[in-house]
Amino acid sequence: MRETDADGLGADLHLELSPAGGRRAALIAALREAVRGGRLAPGTRLPPYRTLAADLGIARNTVADAYAELVAEGWLTSRQGSGTRVADRIAAPAPGPVRPAAPPPLPYDLVQGKPDPGAFPRAAWLAAARRALTAAPHEAFGTGDPHGRIELRRALVEYLARVRGVRTSPDRIVICSGAAHALRLLARVLGTADPWAVEAYGLPFHRGLLADAGVTTMPVAVDDHGVRAGEIPRHASAVLLTPAHQFPTGGPLHPGRRAGVLEWARASGGLVVEDDYDGEFRYDRRPVGAVQGLDPERTAFVGSVSKSLSPALRLGWMCLPSALVDGVVAAKGEREPYASATEQLTLADFLVSGAYDRHVRGMRQRHRRRRDRLVSALAERVPGVRVTGIAAGLHAVVELPPGTERAALDAAARHGIAVEGLAPYRHPDARDPARPDGLVVGYATPPERLYGAAVEALCGALEETSRGGCS
Amino acid sequence: MRETDADGLGADLHLELSPAGGRRAALIAALREAVRGGRLAPGTRLPPYRTLAADLGIARNTVADAYAELVAEGWLTSRQGSGTRVADRIAAPAPGPVRPAAPPPLPYDLVQGKPDPGAFPRAAWLAAARRALTAAPHEAFGTGDPHGRIELRRALVEYLARVRGVRTSPDRIVICSGAAHALRLLARVLGTADPWAVEAYGLPFHRGLLADAGVTTMPVAVDDHGVRAGEIPRHASAVLLTPAHQFPTGGPLHPGRRAGVLEWARASGGLVVEDDYDGEFRYDRRPVGAVQGLDPERTAFVGSVSKSLSPALRLGWMCLPSALVDGVVAAKGEREPYASATEQLTLADFLVSGAYDRHVRGMRQRHRRRRDRLVSALAERVPGVRVTGIAAGLHAVVELPPGTERAALDAAARHGIAVEGLAPYRHPDARDPARPDGLVVGYATPPERLYGAAVEALCGALEETSRGGCS
Repeated sequence: MRETDADGLGADLHLELSPAGGRRAALIAALREAVRGGRLAPGTRLPPYRTLAADLGIARNTVADAYAELVAEGWLTSRQGSGTRVADRIAAPAPGPVRPAAPPPLPYDLVQGKPDPGAFPRAAWLAAARRALTAAPHEAFGTGDPHGRIELRRALVEYLARVRGVRTSPDRIVICSGAAHALRLLARVLGTADPWAVEAYGLPFHRGLLADAGVTTMPVAVDDHGVRAGEIPRHASAVLLTPAHQFPTGGPLHPGRRAGVLEWARASGGLVVEDDYDGEFRYDRRPVGAVQGLDPERTAFVGSVSKSLSPALRLGWMCLPSALVDGVVAAKGEREPYASATEQLTLADFLVSGAYDRHVRGMRQRHRRRRDRLVSALAERVPGVRVTGIAAGLHAVVELPPGTERAALDAAARHGIAVEGLAPYRHPDARDPARPDGLVVGYATPPERLYGAAVEALCGALEETSRGGCS
Repeated sequence: MRETDADGLGADLHLELSPAGGRRAALIAALREAVRGGRLAPGTRLPPYRTLAADLGIARNTVADAYAELVAEGWLTSRQGSGTRVADRIAAPAPGPVRPAAPPPLPYDLVQGKPDPGAFPRAAWLAAARRALTAAPHEAFGTGDPHGRIELRRALVEYLARVRGVRTSPDRIVICSGAAHALRLLARVLGTADPWAVEAYGLPFHRGLLADAGVTTMPVAVDDHGVRAGEIPRHASAVLLTPAHQFPTGGPLHPGRRAGVLEWARASGGLVVEDDYDGEFRYDRRPVGAVQGLDPERTAFVGSVSKSLSPALRLGWMCLPSALVDGVVAAKGEREPYASATEQLTLADFLVSGAYDRHVRGMRQRHRRRRDRLVSALAERVPGVRVTGIAAGLHAVVELPPGTERAALDAAARHGIAVEGLAPYRHPDARDPARPDGLVVGYATPPERLYGAAVEALCGALEETSRGGCS
């Protein structure tokens, strides 16, 4: 390609035509690249078809086609009498967002809430996927029903009745992407006129997403019997509870309080939102059944696979009072917006085939061993602290001497441990006396080979704290 | 179980203990069922442990355990000196929501927007899932990064550059659940102070979700060259476009208009939102490359697998200007809220292995044949109508004689065809002259064996309409 006139090419342009995909496509790609890279400046006139065709040893029509393509895309312009030129102002992308390099993660992850990702049952999940996708009707690959796949809702009715004492039916279940999605949907249906009551200790993430949805949250005190049911405000539209295993303080809701919560619901017309985030994991006895079973028309039971299987699947469910189903489904929209049908079908098979029970049983044993190890190591090495709450779930609260939470967190970080204190879980508006200082220790996350070292490191950090610490 | 005192059981209570799961679990289930079913009324005192144990021939401790379990769950109450009683007011679930039976679906589904669910490549998808889940690092099963899996973002950079002329990098891609999710996120980031410009013909669903997000939409006229770029309001924060194949009217955006849109973006600082909903499907030539390639820092390119593969997977992507990435990711939240990591990894493998290209190639041939068949059948049998727009996508607009859209829809329904008219796609505030009457015919959805009959039925309905119809 040689210079043709004053505003034409100033020098030979070497076009490297890749052999893949045909000459036309190769020429288009090469010209585009030359414009992008600035070798063909805006306004430059391109050589006539015949010149470039001769230069490159290709057919004239191929060059004409390529020019036409690039004109259609906006890279070139073509005007009668002026030939084909590079369009003005083809903008270069800015460099990607520059971020400071993140610090390397601490070696021991004891932040609550996540099962060990290495424990995901890949082979069993793939086997369920194969069975589910092979058996699925064609319509499963069409636009999805926002209720969720019927196969999964049926499987959940059976499973939740058997394992959690939930009383529901497929037409009262709505599939969602996890507890957060469930809360967003419920907030939308209940509206923002009235506040939600929440436990005075709970996930800041949940309070935050309710606030984002325009919902005010009011804390209700939590003691060793769980939430003080008599203190739930009458005008609250809902109360968000963790009855099986108060999060994070770790107690079960006392039977009298369970009754009290339902009395509040009956008297006020409010909704009990039961966040059953880890109800399958109890180590000293069978898990206590769901509050939902006592009054299915006043309780929205919310669960997911995030703790039992993996938070990467984004699958959860709501067992709803009949009166709320249509509203929640309408809030999702006419079609399923988020939950993959293939994943829903795979989970349905995973439940029905017994693979879910097997996995939960295995994880229950593993979590129990880990909790026991944590409790005995701390009892032996750090007499000033104690593990509170029931033997359940994926986390434990380690109660600390007063005023030492900050020092313990600092010591933990020095010992290579990522862990959280109890303080951030307290509702900022809570007025009842705060719980003692504590660490919220998630014992489920580290890989098996690191768990012992993680517990050792935690003991070391807390020993240091109890000796007055160092810095 | 026999009556024991005045408020005790009034008759023998037959408890059927299922042999599965142990006696304790069986007794708990039987008692719960008796309370639920009303055979054990609220307030009823239960027999002492030893009585029931003797009646049932089981150990006294088993009964004591079962009572304690049901007290903990709230089904029974236990007070010193008063024995164990059925709790008050165990509520029964209301019957599920009653809905009128939906009318049976019409036999021929020509509603636009959905590929044939029977064409989903199950075996290839499962093979990709197997490879992807086997190769995945453990962390893939932990909490997800809201940017989306890096494997998928890398695969998309290569694929979209090659097939759609998109210029991006993995750190500028954010995975989402489809175009609707992308629009919600962008609406949140751009705020509601300024309106979005939209094409005067477009998806009511998109206008509706923007309205739900608090965003006003302003229509911009669409002619045979696509949207009139010079009429995009200067103060709009974004313009939502379908440049490859205007939806639904079916033209490509003219090169001059492409330049005009970018001029608007540069002059106003507004964002071009390029909805590339069916950009892979063009039948008369190679698809025109994305507008995004001309100015990646002013264009948000939005795509998904909903048309190419299946809307059931809920997977899409956004290629963003650098300056928008952090805001969009923040709008998603700290963790991936919706998109399954296993599905993301599967799609990444599906792209990299070439399975996606193969599937799209197969579907392109099938769609092309279907469109040709529709065009030639209508040309032969219904001379008063014509198919407008380019040979592309999953739908065609059948232009009708003025004033006949309603009659054509009625005739179609009588002939067993579900199909939509053009009128609902028009923005309610549009003031430019409306398009001629028309049907938006989605030719991709019916199974292969029904497609010929669907086209025949449509010809029959339109013949009837052109003859003045019947009713």
